[in-house]
Amino acid sequence: MKQFSVVGTDVPRTDGPAKARGSALYTDDMKLPGMLYGRIVRSPLAHARIKHIDTSRAAALPGVKCIVTAEDTPKIKYGNWRLFPETQDEYPLAVDKVRFIGDEVAAVAAIDKDTAEEAIELIQVEYEELPSVFDIDAAMQLGAPVLHDYCPTNISVNRKIKYGDVEKGFSESDYVREDTFTVHAVSHAYLEPCSALAQVDLDGRITLWTSTQVPYIIQCLLASTLGMRENDVRVIKPFIGGGFGGKMELRTWEFCAALMAKMTGRPVKFTLSREEEFLAGRRRHPMKIHSKVGFKKDGTLVAKDLRIQLDGGAYNAMGPTATFLCGNFGAMLYRYPSYRFHGQHVYTNKPPASAMRGFGAPQSLYATEIQMNMAAEDLGMDPIDLRIKNAQVSGDKIPDVATISSCGFIESIKAVAEMSGWKEKRENLKPGHGIGIGCYSFISGGVFNWFNTQYPFSAAEVRAFSDGTVHLLTMAADIGQGSDTVLKQILAEELGLRMEDIRMTSADTSMTPQADLGAWGSRITLMAGNAVIDAARKIKEQLFGAVSARFNLNVIHELECKDGRVQAKAKSEYSLSFGEAVAMVQKANRGEPLVARGSYTPRGKGLVTPAFGFGAQVAEVEVDSETGLVEVKHMWTAHDCGTVINPRSVEGQLAGSIQMGLGYALSEQFVMDGGQTLNTNFADYKMPMALDMPPSDVVHVDTYEPEGPMGAKEAGEGLASPTAPAISDAVYHAIGYRCKELPITPEKILNALKKGS
Amino acid sequence: MKQFSVVGTDVPRTDGPAKARGSALYTDDMKLPGMLYGRIVRSPLAHARIKHIDTSRAAALPGVKCIVTAEDTPKIKYGNWRLFPETQDEYPLAVDKVRFIGDEVAAVAAIDKDTAEEAIELIQVEYEELPSVFDIDAAMQLGAPVLHDYCPTNISVNRKIKYGDVEKGFSESDYVREDTFTVHAVSHAYLEPCSALAQVDLDGRITLWTSTQVPYIIQCLLASTLGMRENDVRVIKPFIGGGFGGKMELRTWEFCAALMAKMTGRPVKFTLSREEEFLAGRRRHPMKIHSKVGFKKDGTLVAKDLRIQLDGGAYNAMGPTATFLCGNFGAMLYRYPSYRFHGQHVYTNKPPASAMRGFGAPQSLYATEIQMNMAAEDLGMDPIDLRIKNAQVSGDKIPDVATISSCGFIESIKAVAEMSGWKEKRENLKPGHGIGIGCYSFISGGVFNWFNTQYPFSAAEVRAFSDGTVHLLTMAADIGQGSDTVLKQILAEELGLRMEDIRMTSADTSMTPQADLGAWGSRITLMAGNAVIDAARKIKEQLFGAVSARFNLNVIHELECKDGRVQAKAKSEYSLSFGEAVAMVQKANRGEPLVARGSYTPRGKGLVTPAFGFGAQVAEVEVDSETGLVEVKHMWTAHDCGTVINPRSVEGQLAGSIQMGLGYALSEQFVMDGGQTLNTNFADYKMPMALDMPPSDVVHVDTYEPEGPMGAKEAGEGLASPTAPAISDAVYHAIGYRCKELPITPEKILNALKKGS
Repeated sequence: MKQFSVVGTDVPRTDGPAKARGSALYTDDMKLPGMLYGRIVRSPLAHARIKHIDTSRAAALPGVKCIVTAEDTPKIKYGNWRLFPETQDEYPLAVDKVRFIGDEVAAVAAIDKDTAEEAIELIQVEYEELPSVFDIDAAMQLGAPVLHDYCPTNISVNRKIKYGDVEKGFSESDYVREDTFTVHAVSHAYLEPCSALAQVDLDGRITLWTSTQVPYIIQCLLASTLGMRENDVRVIKPFIGGGFGGKMELRTWEFCAALMAKMTGRPVKFTLSREEEFLAGRRRHPMKIHSKVGFKKDGTLVAKDLRIQLDGGAYNAMGPTATFLCGNFGAMLYRYPSYRFHGQHVYTNKPPASAMRGFGAPQSLYATEIQMNMAAEDLGMDPIDLRIKNAQVSGDKIPDVATISSCGFIESIKAVAEMSGWKEKRENLKPGHGIGIGCYSFISGGVFNWFNTQYPFSAAEVRAFSDGTVHLLTMAADIGQGSDTVLKQILAEELGLRMEDIRMTSADTSMTPQADLGAWGSRITLMAGNAVIDAARKIKEQLFGAVSARFNLNVIHELECKDGRVQAKAKSEYSLSFGEAVAMVQKANRGEPLVARGSYTPRGKGLVTPAFGFGAQVAEVEVDSETGLVEVKHMWTAHDCGTVINPRSVEGQLAGSIQMGLGYALSEQFVMDGGQTLNTNFADYKMPMALDMPPSDVVHVDTYEPEGPMGAKEAGEGLASPTAPAISDAVYHAIGYRCKELPITPEKILNALKKGS
Repeated sequence: MKQFSVVGTDVPRTDGPAKARGSALYTDDMKLPGMLYGRIVRSPLAHARIKHIDTSRAAALPGVKCIVTAEDTPKIKYGNWRLFPETQDEYPLAVDKVRFIGDEVAAVAAIDKDTAEEAIELIQVEYEELPSVFDIDAAMQLGAPVLHDYCPTNISVNRKIKYGDVEKGFSESDYVREDTFTVHAVSHAYLEPCSALAQVDLDGRITLWTSTQVPYIIQCLLASTLGMRENDVRVIKPFIGGGFGGKMELRTWEFCAALMAKMTGRPVKFTLSREEEFLAGRRRHPMKIHSKVGFKKDGTLVAKDLRIQLDGGAYNAMGPTATFLCGNFGAMLYRYPSYRFHGQHVYTNKPPASAMRGFGAPQSLYATEIQMNMAAEDLGMDPIDLRIKNAQVSGDKIPDVATISSCGFIESIKAVAEMSGWKEKRENLKPGHGIGIGCYSFISGGVFNWFNTQYPFSAAEVRAFSDGTVHLLTMAADIGQGSDTVLKQILAEELGLRMEDIRMTSADTSMTPQADLGAWGSRITLMAGNAVIDAARKIKEQLFGAVSARFNLNVIHELECKDGRVQAKAKSEYSLSFGEAVAMVQKANRGEPLVARGSYTPRGKGLVTPAFGFGAQVAEVEVDSETGLVEVKHMWTAHDCGTVINPRSVEGQLAGSIQMGLGYALSEQFVMDGGQTLNTNFADYKMPMALDMPPSDVVHVDTYEPEGPMGAKEAGEGLASPTAPAISDAVYHAIGYRCKELPITPEKILNALKKGS
């Protein structure tokens, strides 16, 4: 293994002190002179035709400065950015129809929040109610209410994958099982509600500060929906209080803030309430998953047939991508000689589902992993052994997707079995106690090459100064995951500098180099990290040239940037301080600053991702047979994220994943009455809290990803998948209840115990 | 003349709408969460030793968060930036001694302004008063109080220039005259008082928003006085309400805001009151000017011997540069076969004088021009004819300074004589009415190559986008003079785009390209303009390559950027839109953004400037013999600023110059009682108002400066010089009173009339 100085160490997070002190500015903390406050008028009906909107009473309210409905907009649709343009089905404000309770109909900007709130109550919308549908089975029936005229079937996306001969595979299998799983919607529940602030600048350009994961995509979509040029919009990402996939689309308040700033000449800010977030916010896709798998007697996988229906809610949002990815995740982890997938994205009159941490993997892999455990039982094998037998390894090809490069999957399974005492516990736990396993694989950034950007996928600029500092600029978005710190570490390592030598500017689409596609798909460490290294190497080349010239070095000398110096490796007397070397390059270049741009675009890496992370997790639970409550006693995780750039950050990702996995498995769900979300606050929506967290151990499996920066790959989203199946399997181990319909509520447990007894 | 599309037209100012609407944010308009308000403790004595500072009572005041004295600082001196390092004599907060009334002793930061104000009253400074000196003659006497230990003579700078044989010149002269002039201190009276706001960012770097003309110099000096690295400081220039030379140095409040932000972790803002500005602010140098000139009978100049003593006040500030420049300006306008200059910069216990619009020229040229008028009378020549006889012309060499390139001086003199009806009026005006002339030459940016920057003097970055827009980045500082608009015009012209296609970011030392030395010496149009063109040409080269490749053009084709297209000049069918051409370059470059950096550093242009502006002005006055009041009836100006980039902006510069010139000649002065400034508000300090402005006509003499961008040179400061001598000469013409001691007050006029009658 290569030895690192800064990479691999627990350097403190760049954003830590500001957040600890409370001085970190989130969008809603910002206030500009003359700023107006926006509020959105939302539909109270799940499906209705808009007959008339009367804004006159609101307009007459003193302090109201602007009211907009679809009539004030260019009525340009948006949606899944440049991926499936034909699936773009959403207007910033509803045109003619509303399709879910909470759908955005109009917006008001007023001199203060109370006035805006009062004004939206005065806007009278006359609706003609239409029949609604809240269930995918019903939505797909002939004669079901149609949500979008362009899509009479309500099935907006059909995605198919096929390789090998699946039918032949099943006919040659010794053991075939078929199961249907349903998984439910949960909320991202980021602690910072969405907020956007727009201002028109001197050039007539709109500057939008917004709580987003994807500044560049917002720039593009906002410009297009406003009928403006891409660079008529500048997007700046302030501090972000979490995204988890819920902040990676253009949203109505961003559009309205911009439009109303343009109309009024004043800054306009929208901040959602928690109630709005829960009522109408994006959520993880509920899915119905039918999976059929065939094995040989010895446990060798032969075939898999996977059908998934996604409940998309009223609009496609990122659903087409989720549909696409579900099919890819279904073929991950294990070697499937033949595989068939059919995904369908279905409209219902509910709040749109969209991207959420794992983006199809938590759902798809819940089915995979539970089914593996069931098959293992039937085949009389230990689930660990069955997994190891079929596990993907480095060099495996997934047709049309990728050849797996680094892969520590088997090592992860073995490590987690070892550390959890699997064999022993699986056999000898007390009644009511159980241990279970779940595994994952995940992408390190999406290739999805129909993300038809004209720019590199990630870019970085490095400016080096004679005072020994460097300035790193990148559009990559730190949304709380710590990517700024990680990118600084990578740069410090490459240039032989310390963290305190690096200044950083990120995620301002006007100032940082074009482009970066945003914080999703666990892409930043690998993609932006590679761009940083590319830029740093160009800087080094020039510094090496200066040192070489200064000492008139023989060309065979290997040079290095290390400990703040630029030097010949073999002869330490041929050495300049970093700043001296920069000054020499500048002088040699007639005073021009030493600046380099770097970029990364995955090429020849298939359509999905340049690198896969892997891992395995074991949960131990105790089930209370009186209350039906599941207590998770311990979690063990072994995972392969390649080189660990910042151990504490990776462990932070793990802790967050376990927290989300606990909620997904056991407590979180939207309680719906038809299209109405009933639990719209943190008292009623049961998210696990710090005190609910189980003790946890982790092993980072030692691998080196050749495509990753200094060997690194994803660590952020893969871990969102194994927790629910591990807990679910442990519950089965404890009490014999096999959950095929998440979440595992006390009611289900008690019902199962009742039946079992 | 070359035909331009955007250059030479009255495009609206970029900053106009925001300023008209009141939405332009000046530093004092900014407010950050947790921000503290700073106030400065100033010396009530003109010269004293600080025996003890007791801050305990102030520290005990609730709401006071930070108090600093020199003891809390690294005690690093600053001053004239990298020009004469040995003249740096000022500490951010007084160490041991105070040297003028208003000298900065301590600073307080508190939660609001009132608390800060109350706190400074509670700080008890025990002084031991020292003898003071307020007059340069007294200060230079043996045994005078010494202000700075390092400088027992109180003469901090001796600057000498000599070429030709001056003594021989005088001996060969037919006519020699010697005069002594004194000119007084006036205030910049910018409408925005100084303000600075500092915040520590995530990287531990200090961001300083400050009302400055010189962001990069502030970055360097602030870093050095804080003992930090250059890039530990980021300076951002918000909207500026005028500078005129008064905001081109690091100042105590900038230092204190930064230091206290570092100490408290909270943003700290200082904004000066108008009283502080008048009491202790920088001002134009009072000077005593002794000038001896020798002519041949026919009016040909033979020799000049110029001695100037500058009353520098308590610190050098920009005085050394002023001393230097006075000598250069003394040799301008006319051909002096022999010339000798001796400038002395003298300390007195008054507020420091420093740079102010014209920077030595208004004083030096007042003497030159009045003396020319006196000589013309003695020689029996028309002052116009005497000037034309001796006027510098294109190709003239000024030893050790420059070879004059473009020069429309004679044309200016002729034009102004013509338009004002000089000949006629000089002979036939009514009693009490007079007409007079003054001329000027001025630099277009300073070379002063001991401004030892490691960077180009000006730099620009241009980013071109496929949506047909470009983004211009430059550190050049628009301080209200309109340079952002001018630079956009130059770029639009060069790239064949419209103003609305250009986005601009300027004057942020962290984001814009290193470096620009700031807004002083009328440098931005020429220097930053050249950098913009350099960058634009690099962009064009790449666009031309794309068009050439696309149409497989023969190499003999001349290509152009025009009307938003990139095309072959001869064949309009070989044409792409600007955006299409950019997209092609990007694709050919694997998606890399199309970005180019340009720069300008004057080389081989001597030590002073790459290009000189010239002009002449005629004033017509009426003198009221009852009141002694001078009414300026009309001003005629003809000037040579090369290509006029924005006519309305140039006329704005002219109007502002006349306003300042009126004040300098007639009404403005600091009323001092020893070291105490008595008139510290706009009621008592008599600045001409809009209603005092005379009608004015202007002719732009048509020249093309080869070193300037599209032929342009300075238009901002030269015009600050001719108004006072023109008015003064007109007063002499009207009533026979020749003012050798500015300003021309009613008292002086009445005294003169009394003597004359």
